[in-house]
Amino acid sequence: MSTQQGLDNIRIVLVRTKAPGNIGAVARCMMNTGLSRLVLVRPPADPSGESVKLAVGAGEILDRAEHRPSLREAVSDCGIVVGTSRRRGRLRRNVRTPREMAGLLMPLLARNRVAIVFGSEVDGLERNDLALCQEMIAIPSSGAFPSLNLSHAVMIVAYELFLASPSPLPAPPAEELAPSDELERFYLHLQQVLHLVGFFEEERPDRMMATLRRIFGRSRPGPRDVRVLRGILTRIEQAVRPPRL
Amino acid sequence: MSTQQGLDNIRIVLVRTKAPGNIGAVARCMMNTGLSRLVLVRPPADPSGESVKLAVGAGEILDRAEHRPSLREAVSDCGIVVGTSRRRGRLRRNVRTPREMAGLLMPLLARNRVAIVFGSEVDGLERNDLALCQEMIAIPSSGAFPSLNLSHAVMIVAYELFLASPSPLPAPPAEELAPSDELERFYLHLQQVLHLVGFFEEERPDRMMATLRRIFGRSRPGPRDVRVLRGILTRIEQAVRPPRL
Repeated sequence: MSTQQGLDNIRIVLVRTKAPGNIGAVARCMMNTGLSRLVLVRPPADPSGESVKLAVGAGEILDRAEHRPSLREAVSDCGIVVGTSRRRGRLRRNVRTPREMAGLLMPLLARNRVAIVFGSEVDGLERNDLALCQEMIAIPSSGAFPSLNLSHAVMIVAYELFLASPSPLPAPPAEELAPSDELERFYLHLQQVLHLVGFFEEERPDRMMATLRRIFGRSRPGPRDVRVLRGILTRIEQAVRPPRL
Repeated sequence: MSTQQGLDNIRIVLVRTKAPGNIGAVARCMMNTGLSRLVLVRPPADPSGESVKLAVGAGEILDRAEHRPSLREAVSDCGIVVGTSRRRGRLRRNVRTPREMAGLLMPLLARNRVAIVFGSEVDGLERNDLALCQEMIAIPSSGAFPSLNLSHAVMIVAYELFLASPSPLPAPPAEELAPSDELERFYLHLQQVLHLVGFFEEERPDRMMATLRRIFGRSRPGPRDVRVLRGILTRIEQAVRPPRL
């Protein structure tokens, strides 16, 4: 379906979308911009076939869409998980424009799966979903009325990716990133060790883990990096609580 | 309504639109991007208020939309009339991308009214309408399925105009990075703790420290990040080697 080098490694993930028509409109945007992999996390019922109607020529993308019960499962094999937000505020450091993000992602697409995640029309992404995102996109818009329709938000991001994608040419050697589930196991391990050493006696675990997720998320660790970091955690455990003989 | 310098001089002109919902969706796009002047040439009947429904917060733009019987009358006071087309072919000479056109128009907006004209969902612009356009925009899209939804086409063009307009947003807060000497003290501390927990019994210190420098260096930690990380290191030291009383 898509012929753009690299764009095949992009998944558009829609989380708890409310309006079936928006899913169809998103499929059409994807078709317009050479994207093909759509993942739906808890999509709405669609008894009257609204999504097919609005997909126009992009029914194939709808037919091939994958369904997942949670964002975590939707992105488990993705090296980069990019959230989208209308707010620049909360997660300020890692928030980029669609154009900046497209430039950042392009060289990584040769060897990594990338998820771009859009929350529901009403609430956006929930805290738990945001925690899975290493990077954030905020679409520049008028301060007076910043809230874009879901399919329009996808259109802007997909358009920037399409413009940034190379015409099929030999790609530069790319870095390989640790998939999301490996990273999540690292964060869990880290949290356990921080408990063990008493770090959370003075600090709030949720706030600290959010900070640490930002620090390591920005770093985009590779599989070997994660092995090194977990090796350190294991050593700390052994030092604090030596194995009984 | 709009506060963007110059954008007030842009009119979005929709010619013979078929679906009332698309008009509402276009109004929302305009609101998102600081545009406010909508002109409708022979719009469709809208008995069930579809356009208002899809305009969401942009009802004011619909209310103030001007109605004109022909494109000629709609653009009579405009210094520049820009058509949009999905085909690059026919009028090749003056066809530009939305980004190129936004750059071209910006300096002209201070003293000129500009019309950007979108034809019907089915046929686009007719020959007579095209004759009124001095410039043409074609939106880059996948050769396999180039036809964008009308409101998505407006969204892309409006987004590029918004980005090109002077100071569209308060600059994002610049990120503050930890100075090099703070970072070096962190690495030294990290190395001491790794010694303490026995990590270097199996791993070569120089190689491991190089890896860790890469991991944390990519993350570009801020001063607060460094404080958090060093707080963790201190906790680990205390857990492994409790302070003597």
